[in-house]
Amino acid sequence: MKNLEERVKSVIRDVQDFPKPGILFKDITPILLYPDLLQDMITEMANQFEGIQIDAVAGIESRGYLFGVLLAQKLQVPFIMIRKEGKLPAKTIKESYDLEYGSATIEVHEDAIKTGSNVLIHDDLLATGGTAIAAANLIKQKANVAGFSFVIDLTFLEGSKKLKEIKPIVKSLITY
Amino acid sequence: MKNLEERVKSVIRDVQDFPKPGILFKDITPILLYPDLLQDMITEMANQFEGIQIDAVAGIESRGYLFGVLLAQKLQVPFIMIRKEGKLPAKTIKESYDLEYGSATIEVHEDAIKTGSNVLIHDDLLATGGTAIAAANLIKQKANVAGFSFVIDLTFLEGSKKLKEIKPIVKSLITY
Repeated sequence: MKNLEERVKSVIRDVQDFPKPGILFKDITPILLYPDLLQDMITEMANQFEGIQIDAVAGIESRGYLFGVLLAQKLQVPFIMIRKEGKLPAKTIKESYDLEYGSATIEVHEDAIKTGSNVLIHDDLLATGGTAIAAANLIKQKANVAGFSFVIDLTFLEGSKKLKEIKPIVKSLITY
Repeated sequence: MKNLEERVKSVIRDVQDFPKPGILFKDITPILLYPDLLQDMITEMANQFEGIQIDAVAGIESRGYLFGVLLAQKLQVPFIMIRKEGKLPAKTIKESYDLEYGSATIEVHEDAIKTGSNVLIHDDLLATGGTAIAAANLIKQKANVAGFSFVIDLTFLEGSKKLKEIKPIVKSLITY
């Protein structure tokens, strides 16, 4: 029987030149078509943080919601939505960060984060880490970063090195 | 003990004048902070379709992913991502629809939908039904609509009347 990493990799699809020429995109959407695989992944993602205090999972819009909400339910903790600017209706806190061209802002409802709680940050894919660092800085305005959880870590981009300076607990299910 | 509808309504937040003046926005994000409530909601949403053949759940970006992926896991069926145009990397099928001002296009990976299968369409909120109808037309390019699932139905906008012309199985957990 194949191990979990092999099973996940066997359904992830490589798409050439998306979203722009020269980029080899890792398409995680086929994972969602296999409910048994998805369940095993969520179990393993939860196991990766055994013994670590997690009071909530924060997922980054929008692919970070897919596994993030399942992980939060598995851990039986609140799920916090990190959204792009302007989409959350009530009072928010914000964090801006630089992109290759220009900048972006993410935000979270202020009352979704309990002061001093330990929040696990989740996204589907870790590349250079820019968005995850911004998410961490956002959470740190009110709470603590418990760690980082990803499905995929593109290790050649060395995002986890930067994240470990914030919090050394950086986990992924599979690496390339 | 309060029933489920009362419990859900007690955590949904009314936000005045979002996304624009004159609109009273129903903010579902606080639901996600209560894992027990969320679990009970997903159980009830699954129960609403007992006896109906559902081969997959299709969720509409991005709030439709939150409950949609949990519902698909509860039913142990594939989860299909319906996204805004340009975000899915592989070959897609598309559907355009009119908005109050202008138009929008949604799409789905062509190979995510099994030909002739029965797909339940999920979104968090049913308003006039424009997006859900577009989602149904999108699914019908390859498969059948098994029904529609929402957390909230804003009944005064009469969206469900239009959806029932496509498929009479239209369920929501709570109504306003």
